[in-house]
Amino acid sequence: MGKANKSVKTAGKAASAKPGEDKPMLRAIKGGKSPPPKAAAKTAAAPPAAQSKTAMMKALNAKPAPAKSAPTMPDDVPVIALNLEPGKLSPAMAAYFRKCQDKLGFVPNVLLAYAFDSTKLETFVAFYNDLMLGASGLSKLEREMIAVAVSSQNRCYYCLTAHGAAVRQYSGNPLLGEHLVMNYRVARLNRRQRAMLDFAVKLTASPWSVEEGDRERLRRAGFTDRDIWDISSVAGFFNMSNRVAAATDMRPNAAYHGQAR
Amino acid sequence: MGKANKSVKTAGKAASAKPGEDKPMLRAIKGGKSPPPKAAAKTAAAPPAAQSKTAMMKALNAKPAPAKSAPTMPDDVPVIALNLEPGKLSPAMAAYFRKCQDKLGFVPNVLLAYAFDSTKLETFVAFYNDLMLGASGLSKLEREMIAVAVSSQNRCYYCLTAHGAAVRQYSGNPLLGEHLVMNYRVARLNRRQRAMLDFAVKLTASPWSVEEGDRERLRRAGFTDRDIWDISSVAGFFNMSNRVAAATDMRPNAAYHGQAR
Amino acid sequence: MGKANKSVKTAGKAASAKPGEDKPMLRAIKGGKSPPPKAAAKTAAAPPAAQSKTAMMKALNAKPAPAKSAPTMPDDVPVIALNLEPGKLSPAMAAYFRKCQDKLGFVPNVLLAYAFDSTKLETFVAFYNDLMLGASGLSKLEREMIAVAVSSQNRCYYCLTAHGAAVRQYSGNPLLGEHLVMNYRVARLNRRQRAMLDFAVKLTASPWSVEEGDRERLRRAGFTDRDIWDISSVAGFFNMSNRVAAATDMRPNAAYHGQAR
Amino acid sequence: MGKANKSVKTAGKAASAKPGEDKPMLRAIKGGKSPPPKAAAKTAAAPPAAQSKTAMMKALNAKPAPAKSAPTMPDDVPVIALNLEPGKLSPAMAAYFRKCQDKLGFVPNVLLAYAFDSTKLETFVAFYNDLMLGASGLSKLEREMIAVAVSSQNRCYYCLTAHGAAVRQYSGNPLLGEHLVMNYRVARLNRRQRAMLDFAVKLTASPWSVEEGDRERLRRAGFTDRDIWDISSVAGFFNMSNRVAAATDMRPNAAYHGQAR
Amino acid sequence: MGKANKSVKTAGKAASAKPGEDKPMLRAIKGGKSPPPKAAAKTAAAPPAAQSKTAMMKALNAKPAPAKSAPTMPDDVPVIALNLEPGKLSPAMAAYFRKCQDKLGFVPNVLLAYAFDSTKLETFVAFYNDLMLGASGLSKLEREMIAVAVSSQNRCYYCLTAHGAAVRQYSGNPLLGEHLVMNYRVARLNRRQRAMLDFAVKLTASPWSVEEGDRERLRRAGFTDRDIWDISSVAGFFNMSNRVAAATDMRPNAAYHGQAR
Amino acid sequence: MGKANKSVKTAGKAASAKPGEDKPMLRAIKGGKSPPPKAAAKTAAAPPAAQSKTAMMKALNAKPAPAKSAPTMPDDVPVIALNLEPGKLSPAMAAYFRKCQDKLGFVPNVLLAYAFDSTKLETFVAFYNDLMLGASGLSKLEREMIAVAVSSQNRCYYCLTAHGAAVRQYSGNPLLGEHLVMNYRVARLNRRQRAMLDFAVKLTASPWSVEEGDRERLRRAGFTDRDIWDISSVAGFFNMSNRVAAATDMRPNAAYHGQAR
Repeated sequence: MGKANKSVKTAGKAASAKPGEDKPMLRAIKGGKSPPPKAAAKTAAAPPAAQSKTAMMKALNAKPAPAKSAPTMPDDVPVIALNLEPGKLSPAMAAYFRKCQDKLGFVPNVLLAYAFDSTKLETFVAFYNDLMLGASGLSKLEREMIAVAVSSQNRCYYCLTAHGAAVRQYSGNPLLGEHLVMNYRVARLNRRQRAMLDFAVKLTASPWSVEEGDRERLRRAGFTDRDIWDISSVAGFFNMSNRVAAATDMRPNAAYHGQAR
Repeated sequence: MGKANKSVKTAGKAASAKPGEDKPMLRAIKGGKSPPPKAAAKTAAAPPAAQSKTAMMKALNAKPAPAKSAPTMPDDVPVIALNLEPGKLSPAMAAYFRKCQDKLGFVPNVLLAYAFDSTKLETFVAFYNDLMLGASGLSKLEREMIAVAVSSQNRCYYCLTAHGAAVRQYSGNPLLGEHLVMNYRVARLNRRQRAMLDFAVKLTASPWSVEEGDRERLRRAGFTDRDIWDISSVAGFFNMSNRVAAATDMRPNAAYHGQAR
Repeated sequence: MGKANKSVKTAGKAASAKPGEDKPMLRAIKGGKSPPPKAAAKTAAAPPAAQSKTAMMKALNAKPAPAKSAPTMPDDVPVIALNLEPGKLSPAMAAYFRKCQDKLGFVPNVLLAYAFDSTKLETFVAFYNDLMLGASGLSKLEREMIAVAVSSQNRCYYCLTAHGAAVRQYSGNPLLGEHLVMNYRVARLNRRQRAMLDFAVKLTASPWSVEEGDRERLRRAGFTDRDIWDISSVAGFFNMSNRVAAATDMRPNAAYHGQAR
Repeated sequence: MGKANKSVKTAGKAASAKPGEDKPMLRAIKGGKSPPPKAAAKTAAAPPAAQSKTAMMKALNAKPAPAKSAPTMPDDVPVIALNLEPGKLSPAMAAYFRKCQDKLGFVPNVLLAYAFDSTKLETFVAFYNDLMLGASGLSKLEREMIAVAVSSQNRCYYCLTAHGAAVRQYSGNPLLGEHLVMNYRVARLNRRQRAMLDFAVKLTASPWSVEEGDRERLRRAGFTDRDIWDISSVAGFFNMSNRVAAATDMRPNAAYHGQAR
Repeated sequence: MGKANKSVKTAGKAASAKPGEDKPMLRAIKGGKSPPPKAAAKTAAAPPAAQSKTAMMKALNAKPAPAKSAPTMPDDVPVIALNLEPGKLSPAMAAYFRKCQDKLGFVPNVLLAYAFDSTKLETFVAFYNDLMLGASGLSKLEREMIAVAVSSQNRCYYCLTAHGAAVRQYSGNPLLGEHLVMNYRVARLNRRQRAMLDFAVKLTASPWSVEEGDRERLRRAGFTDRDIWDISSVAGFFNMSNRVAAATDMRPNAAYHGQAR
Repeated sequence: MGKANKSVKTAGKAASAKPGEDKPMLRAIKGGKSPPPKAAAKTAAAPPAAQSKTAMMKALNAKPAPAKSAPTMPDDVPVIALNLEPGKLSPAMAAYFRKCQDKLGFVPNVLLAYAFDSTKLETFVAFYNDLMLGASGLSKLEREMIAVAVSSQNRCYYCLTAHGAAVRQYSGNPLLGEHLVMNYRVARLNRRQRAMLDFAVKLTASPWSVEEGDRERLRRAGFTDRDIWDISSVAGFFNMSNRVAAATDMRPNAAYHGQAR
């Protein structure tokens, strides 16, 4: 790993070995509850071998699953409906994938999707990790709540599944995940979180109509201007990711479905 | 500029001094036509001092312009409607800003907006530059065309202004910029570019409805699967940026308005 | 209770004691898989006593749950946000509720919601059971698929939860339930079922625009005119139920969430 | 037929012969003004024979009317665009149809549409009659007003015609019927009725957005929680019926057009 | 009528006495069937005196009708919800109003609405009469059909009432009027007229999306380019009038409601 | 000018020679700033000959421009996508066109479009000139602001271009024109003008929902009832013109693009 290690050192923060800078992509690595092993076992049983690095990359190009002969067969092979030549992972990204595999038990499919191009993968990971795991006045749960409410507005299968699981895990409240997937208005939220999601969903549905009055509502609910930036950035980001996922028919890892129910 | 210069050298990819890796954010630096100096002089006359580094950062926090007493006064001070404490630029970003200033005559306001946090600025710049200036089967003009068509659907003032100017510059066809800002369907496009914008706009307006048939239409118009990824990524990115701009009332640099008319 | 009892005898098919006429409301009683006892135990642990008849009826009027102090607390007490005086169940309906309790382990909350008025409850049950369980060219699974696709269009928490569980159970395919809840277009359906859901969702979103061409598409996918009636009736019914649920903030039984994952 | 006959006797309230339980489907039988004989004569002249029981059932299957050679020819033969085998009416339903014929001069086409299946007809009639004619804090006129406002939102020809006529009859105010068909906001309603229709139309157009604030508005306008149930149920019901009518191209009886003008 | 007659002669183009230039506003003057006197008598009984010139103009400024104490009371006093000082009619317009009164039995309220300013009235009348009564490849009925289909899309009470009556009169087919008011898709139109209304309604609902393909569909249905201009102009005009009527709460003359039923 | 003058005399009000009645169609003739000659020279250089009367009329029927070989080639030949036989201008209209040519340097293409029929041209010009240039409590700039805000809602290329230029000229504030073209909510308007545009845009987007409360908001912002009429009329008019332009693919004169930047 010498050479790889060296690259990692210079790779910047995305996968730095320095303590305290460790910002892995996925919530479960730090702090979130681990996925219940049993659930993972049940739904993600099929693809263990697939998670070896070679197999993982192959998943991108496999033929679509034939008609649902085996009804519980995972639907995430291939990961996307585009036939992209798998690229060579940079050492930093290879290390990052290994870390995901160790901690989560799988590499999130969105990473496999971006892996055809190492630069795109790295910039995506850096952007995502800063946004969702970096310092913020919003808790990680709150950022995931925005992710799900936005993705529900856009009806994005990938993001609803992956981030719905994150909300269930972070909150320890499976109902909250269901509420946000189906209709965030049925969730029994405090004033702060309701204002946050109202803003994110309005920004999603009719960005042209967001004005100072909307920002003022957030401030009155206790958010700072920096918080408003973060709410906007997270909502914006999932408006991007929802569309990349929709455009490519991106499929979530099977393991998400059973997590934290 | 010795010390600054040195920082630039170590600044990593965003503003590397190595030939061939030069990926500045803005189209005009390489290849695009420079803004007609006269136009710039006319509309951007006010903020020259503002473009000194200190003044630039101050622009973020200035009070909103009072009622339009001087009608031609630029509307981009402050840049956004959030009161964010300006952060300290990393040497790499400081060098990048100087480069923008030298080549474009100004630092794009979106960069000033992100500059309150150096990590956010760097990840944004890296993501953007790879997406819009990196290798792709789409020309830079085509990527800008997507940017404007998406931003028109979302009625985003910042992006329509900045990327409308880019379309005018890259194409040398001011009409094309106007068409895409107002209604891309009136532009007289070839089949490839029309299919590209139809896809991007559908993905913007109703991402849930994009399916294999839509990808097939792109393939029939001559796009590869990798091109489809790029169309989707650019369309996705501006669905993000449009919302960050809307949420923060981001204002475009005055200079854009007159460019390449 | 003599007279009431006599009425019950003549109460017709909804809850007849005659063998072979038994058409209970819920799919699980006949044929569907029983809910995994463990899942039920996990999520529905709280309300066992509530399922005694008295307690059940009280659930209608209880105060709303206070802020989510206990995150996994079920959210279905009270069942609806209207304060309706619980009515006296007719003997037929009382028997029907006991049957639900025995076979399902709970009485579906929609029945508790209607129970304030015995006539309304009976006409609802009779209508529902004929529609969803009576003879039809559509399988019970297909009718549930329509229920979920329509409820997703209308973002109905109650129906997505209860009928999402039904799709998981009937199909033995948890993924199918998730697909239909989130965006039916991601489900890998055969031509018949896709045509069926396209019709149901169009009928939901813009009923005024359904015309002969839409019926022809169903016929070409293999449906008879009688099937078209049934697709329309089921889609229509959930457009009603979604709105009654939304208008009253109806909450699904906690047990549904964990069923057949 | 002895046994069947016996069932009919016990068939319950839908078509009971007992005085005082008489709840025919159509408003005109009790209380509403009879249709002006002249108007009926003018527009409904054609189908008198068609209203014999045999002819009525034939109306379901007749070929569609050829191009409007005779401009005032009724458009309700066939009643729907589906070719359904007429079923055998149960004695209860046969009696109910005779009653409609006697009192109204015709059997409403929606009943003919459901008559291919006697169970479906009976459950529909029972559900409808309880909803629209049963005890409620809403007057029968108010329930018809909801029916028309909802059907206008959904642009349902059948329901606008049949229930538009009902509003004209019950209110004695032909203008009110026109207002609700065209745009309920132009009707000069008292606060109570305006709140009622605002709720019903919002529930129709965006059920996901109905929340406690909407219920509170109804309460402030004087409605009880039971009234809110009834408003919701009626609005829900016509969201169902509008869709069954749209999906089947159901045509209203010619007689409605001229009633109570 | 000597003096009036004389004014008419000099009235200029709107109501010129020259043969062949006679272009009265209202369809009934030439060719259309007169309103059935009885219907007019029934519904328009109230305002005969109001039709004297003084009373007519007063109608503009009267107080709104109090709560519907007398249910059949016309709702068109005042004509609009703006308090505009009645202007002095030019001799040409005075003569034109007398002509309307003589031939139709009333002056259409839209004319009373514009009468606060004689120039506006004259330009409106000239524009309208050329459009709806001038030479065209579209019959007058077809132009009225467009008027109603557009007004239904916009839910305009005034235009649906006045032009719905016109369709009933011109076609001699009361059903056609009802169909177009409620949902033009239920009308049994020939291919030409269906294409015409599809174009007009699309142009109304999403003008930005009309392109060459839409014009081609009209050409294939037999329309010339001049016909396309006329379809567009009529559809455009009612998009204007619907909005002026909506903005001012314009009320149609009571007499329309009963015409040609 | 003798001959022209004579034609003008008989031309009626549209182009009367009487002082004070002079109501030319285009804002620049009276009061507005002239188009910067340089801008006109740059963008409108091509069509000078085309502006001779014969050439002008030919512009209507020319073949569409081939693929954008010369990128800055104007796109307004032909003016519309309909092949209409040019009509003979009445002397009044001929004089009016000459006047446009003299004062503006071109005849607005909308006039060329209508010129196939002299009556339609005259009624359009009379209607337009009274509306946009006649006496009103709204300034000419305010009327142009409404034109642009409405046209932005409808995404009308012709009107956004022509009236966007008018806003830039009348206001002397190029930014205001850009704001209104892109999203009127970003313009920094006073309360009066914001209320005016909110009303106009609501009336455009959902005319059925405009009610007394909307008029009251205008009154509270300082508008009289007569002003409300004028706001409504201008908003209505551009809802018409936007649709005529969309339906015919009307192209704006090249000169507009560069005016008053």
